[in-house]
Amino acid sequence: MSEQAHTPIPLKWVGPLRISGDVTDEISVPLATYETPLWPSVGRGARISSLIDGGIRAVVVDERMSRSVVFEADDAATALAAWRRLESSREELQSVISATSRFARLIDLHVQIVGDLLFLRFELTTGDASGHNMVTLAAERLMDHILSVEPGLRYGSISGNYCTDKKTSAVNGILGRGKNVVTEALIPRELVTKRLRTTAERMATLNTRKNLLGSLVAGSLRSANAHYANMLLAFYLATGQDAANIVEGSQGITRAEDRDGDLYFSCTLPHLIVGSVGNGKGLPQVEEALTRLGCREDRPAGENARRLAVLAAAAVWCGELSLMAAQTNPGELMRSHVVLERGSRPTP
Amino acid sequence: MSEQAHTPIPLKWVGPLRISGDVTDEISVPLATYETPLWPSVGRGARISSLIDGGIRAVVVDERMSRSVVFEADDAATALAAWRRLESSREELQSVISATSRFARLIDLHVQIVGDLLFLRFELTTGDASGHNMVTLAAERLMDHILSVEPGLRYGSISGNYCTDKKTSAVNGILGRGKNVVTEALIPRELVTKRLRTTAERMATLNTRKNLLGSLVAGSLRSANAHYANMLLAFYLATGQDAANIVEGSQGITRAEDRDGDLYFSCTLPHLIVGSVGNGKGLPQVEEALTRLGCREDRPAGENARRLAVLAAAAVWCGELSLMAAQTNPGELMRSHVVLERGSRPTP
Amino acid sequence: MSEQAHTPIPLKWVGPLRISGDVTDEISVPLATYETPLWPSVGRGARISSLIDGGIRAVVVDERMSRSVVFEADDAATALAAWRRLESSREELQSVISATSRFARLIDLHVQIVGDLLFLRFELTTGDASGHNMVTLAAERLMDHILSVEPGLRYGSISGNYCTDKKTSAVNGILGRGKNVVTEALIPRELVTKRLRTTAERMATLNTRKNLLGSLVAGSLRSANAHYANMLLAFYLATGQDAANIVEGSQGITRAEDRDGDLYFSCTLPHLIVGSVGNGKGLPQVEEALTRLGCREDRPAGENARRLAVLAAAAVWCGELSLMAAQTNPGELMRSHVVLERGSRPTP
Amino acid sequence: MSEQAHTPIPLKWVGPLRISGDVTDEISVPLATYETPLWPSVGRGARISSLIDGGIRAVVVDERMSRSVVFEADDAATALAAWRRLESSREELQSVISATSRFARLIDLHVQIVGDLLFLRFELTTGDASGHNMVTLAAERLMDHILSVEPGLRYGSISGNYCTDKKTSAVNGILGRGKNVVTEALIPRELVTKRLRTTAERMATLNTRKNLLGSLVAGSLRSANAHYANMLLAFYLATGQDAANIVEGSQGITRAEDRDGDLYFSCTLPHLIVGSVGNGKGLPQVEEALTRLGCREDRPAGENARRLAVLAAAAVWCGELSLMAAQTNPGELMRSHVVLERGSRPTP
Repeated sequence: MSEQAHTPIPLKWVGPLRISGDVTDEISVPLATYETPLWPSVGRGARISSLIDGGIRAVVVDERMSRSVVFEADDAATALAAWRRLESSREELQSVISATSRFARLIDLHVQIVGDLLFLRFELTTGDASGHNMVTLAAERLMDHILSVEPGLRYGSISGNYCTDKKTSAVNGILGRGKNVVTEALIPRELVTKRLRTTAERMATLNTRKNLLGSLVAGSLRSANAHYANMLLAFYLATGQDAANIVEGSQGITRAEDRDGDLYFSCTLPHLIVGSVGNGKGLPQVEEALTRLGCREDRPAGENARRLAVLAAAAVWCGELSLMAAQTNPGELMRSHVVLERGSRPTP
Repeated sequence: MSEQAHTPIPLKWVGPLRISGDVTDEISVPLATYETPLWPSVGRGARISSLIDGGIRAVVVDERMSRSVVFEADDAATALAAWRRLESSREELQSVISATSRFARLIDLHVQIVGDLLFLRFELTTGDASGHNMVTLAAERLMDHILSVEPGLRYGSISGNYCTDKKTSAVNGILGRGKNVVTEALIPRELVTKRLRTTAERMATLNTRKNLLGSLVAGSLRSANAHYANMLLAFYLATGQDAANIVEGSQGITRAEDRDGDLYFSCTLPHLIVGSVGNGKGLPQVEEALTRLGCREDRPAGENARRLAVLAAAAVWCGELSLMAAQTNPGELMRSHVVLERGSRPTP
Repeated sequence: MSEQAHTPIPLKWVGPLRISGDVTDEISVPLATYETPLWPSVGRGARISSLIDGGIRAVVVDERMSRSVVFEADDAATALAAWRRLESSREELQSVISATSRFARLIDLHVQIVGDLLFLRFELTTGDASGHNMVTLAAERLMDHILSVEPGLRYGSISGNYCTDKKTSAVNGILGRGKNVVTEALIPRELVTKRLRTTAERMATLNTRKNLLGSLVAGSLRSANAHYANMLLAFYLATGQDAANIVEGSQGITRAEDRDGDLYFSCTLPHLIVGSVGNGKGLPQVEEALTRLGCREDRPAGENARRLAVLAAAAVWCGELSLMAAQTNPGELMRSHVVLERGSRPTP
Repeated sequence: MSEQAHTPIPLKWVGPLRISGDVTDEISVPLATYETPLWPSVGRGARISSLIDGGIRAVVVDERMSRSVVFEADDAATALAAWRRLESSREELQSVISATSRFARLIDLHVQIVGDLLFLRFELTTGDASGHNMVTLAAERLMDHILSVEPGLRYGSISGNYCTDKKTSAVNGILGRGKNVVTEALIPRELVTKRLRTTAERMATLNTRKNLLGSLVAGSLRSANAHYANMLLAFYLATGQDAANIVEGSQGITRAEDRDGDLYFSCTLPHLIVGSVGNGKGLPQVEEALTRLGCREDRPAGENARRLAVLAAAAVWCGELSLMAAQTNPGELMRSHVVLERGSRPTP
């Protein structure tokens, strides 16, 4: 009852997308999914990107990986005193971290004191790895170190959920976790009319009512989009990522504005967790996908992973644009689903 | 640039798990994942379940699938009047729905009025399908119908994000979406000591500090667990589910209590979205997995899907128990990760 | 060290406001506050309402008061079975409630099962009282009754925070608590220009960026407004309300849309908790304020309280409109604050 | 229709409370409220504090006041470039701030980039003032300055809701706003039994089920307590605070743990907004209350306000302890409410 095998997920390369900004390229992206209507949907967005000057402009605003730990303190005052000492001894903490990896670099440190509990959040850059294991190892050594220098503290937990991994939160968007990527473009009126069969005004109205107000009444948290999770899942599976991180990935913000008839459309993904090395990357089809995406090049540490994040974010932009446009037109969503599913269903 | 292929995800059958309650069985579950340390982790939980009388007790508390739509109304009073009429004409709405599917049955209806916008949330049972397409089609016809009888309303959007699909929310847990499943067991003290190398007291303390308090300070929403998303992703990929629904799936609640030295451990998954028929189910390896799980039997509509939901929730219970136990012990998490990854890395 | 006295809060009657819809009137409202710039701010909105046909249109969408209780159950299956029995014996529950008050009427019942815990949320109409004490008393008797008929349940808590009182939540907006009131108006372009010194377009843009996007990145929950809490506090203090309920009151939604140059402006307050009878209402200045507001009339139970809710919501609309307009103009906020504070500071 | 007057709120000095830590004192606190059962409830907690060695230990973890502004940028890259320049020119920003107040000092700066919008959050210490006006004035000047040096930016709003004021959020707890105060004590078993008529175990269980799990299922956000808002409202009104800030104040965390039969009880208030100078402070009864509390002394800037925050937090601890204890006992809550209301109702 423990045999090992593989589950093949249908995959298609969709595009090419046109991108500029932190990455400049025209390139297709691989999407592995059981929900194959996603392919033509992203494809429509990609075609539009290829018809715009500069295509999708992408900016990597920030990057880091985090792990939080918990200590029991003698009391809140002890927790606070320990925090103040740790905050002012970052070099010491860095030297502990450096013994675990040459890529791990401490860039920030945050705290929550809840009664006599001390939550510390270590924030590191981790080169081309998504960094889950790197920060866990660093956190373990940091805990050992801290316990040795702070007699008023005791072990609470190696993971305190103030990280937070694969769970919805506000902290990841406010303090950062993974790559923070913005993709945006101004889509000329003619493209909006001909290719999306809608108008900038209708897109702006829909975005406000559905993504902002609808999400708000649903009790969503730092989340205003139609379906980022779909594109991220497919891109993550195709590129060997830990796809459970679509949970955080799904918390992003779509904006659509009518600018004199042209459509400003942007996707903000504050915590996109990807790596070009690490778990899952040794498999041949993953290796091939990463290579074809240009994310296995010999570049300074971190650049391959940032490129990968930009490509993921660009794929999100394409799929989001296309679905939003469909929803401005009564009946189009269902029609396209039925047609697309019939036409593109994977042959088993 | 548009060739089609497959991405093979490493898969293993883990178990057997022992389950009682709404499903009674001893059965292994398939987990497809790049994060292969998950297999022995779930395996440890499974072994414990097999040593407990009755194993994991599972209850399906509720089931439904939802789609929300938005209308523009002349004003808030018009929206309210329309809502009152619709609320009292459920049979009429059901007859519209019945024309779209013999499985779709309207079980509830909810509303949000925001200024002059009317958000309606249709809640249906959908047989053995997860029901995304079924409710979208039903919602489309319902919109047409409503627009024909309510002159004060105009089309807003076929999806108003008050549904809400693949996005974090509070509404899905409060009003329901997918299967609401509770898994629980009382684990005798000896098993806690020998198999989990911890105590009920330490588990209870960790759960309060990490899953409850840690999640709380992270600004999480209706979410208190360590890593439900990992088990759900692997189970969903292996069984042909739309795995982007792990976003909602990740919002669940772990409880751990010390009951005279025994450990009460439960996982509550309020919105587990699974189907035993529908998209992705025609692929041979999916068909095989569902068949082996006993979810392709000739049973009353909905029973195969409920069985599938219980099996998913039981796998979550196993993996959650195992990781929580590891985190009560300083150093164990990293050690086990390193060992397990070396030992069980999939051969490419 | 325990002497009793009074704290006098500066109070002013502001208006008149013009209202139509569920209440039709031209009436001033009392605002008690230390933050006296609030008076001219609400006053500006009131003047605008008086210049619009019909003034502010107000609709009471829903009303109820809730209390949740918690039971320990033998296990989740026992909790679910108890819930199903209770759900289908509402008349029995109503007869228990009727013995506590002639006003309390059960209108709905909701559940959360978390492992072996059973949270029940009783939802009642409570006549002209805000109803905190009425539902607490009813809940206490209901618990006694339920414990007597359900041997698998034990007392958990008389208040389970699924109510939820004076704390931020999503549940109150989704299931309802207090009065759900919408206020809205279409403000002609000339008034927007002359009286608010702005345009509909600038108001719409500001509302999207500040109230929707800004609140979203702040990790707000079901909340998109500038300062509802200010108006509610002042109105509540002047009318003898339990002003701690501004916590829930603050979670409301402002909309601003440019409709061909006119400004559509609405405030949605999903859980406005007010009463015209009950605690604090016996004090002479409160009695006087309620009488002057027309909320001590001899009307069917509930009407005085609904009238009070509409007046509160109308005051919110006025203050929100005015502050939002000020923030569209660089420098105006600070200038008006300085001027107003100097001009209207209460004479001690 | 615009006459000015006062609303007298019933006020009582409750205590004395015993406090140690950042403030050491035995002192009564003034509570102004229509909900007079609050007085004996806080009184019971105060008596307990006076029977414990050291009483309530209080720690001020952090303090700051924030204001966020919004700029439109040419695009996201422009927003990011501007942010990077601003982040590294803090001295320049400080010199702009210093021209507005000798107390305002910039201690941190945070950013959110959403498409082409730039949200900046200025965080300042503000001496003994709560600081709303001080940071607004500083923000206004900072905007002028930034607009003069960054040609790619345009005015968005003086308040971007990423502050965030009088509205529920996660950002205030994660980045800080107001005073972050922890109050805690270990209450000996005998006191728990005799004075609170409960046990540490029952308190711990109730806290987990009601404040943690109940709030969680309610979809609360960074909030786990029974009724902080009640004590804060009464204390704020008595001391001339802007009581609308109880909205943020209500988001705090109660912990209760059984430590060998003794009760560890703590209240964490991450964003308590108070000032000993500023709006509302000139009124004679406020002046008297602040003087009697020892918050009008000639001390270094900020110390009077910190003292006030500690006293507020200690009052919260007392009231929270008492209500939680009552809820562990079936029937006690209602009985005490009825008795107390009859006994202590303010004489009109």
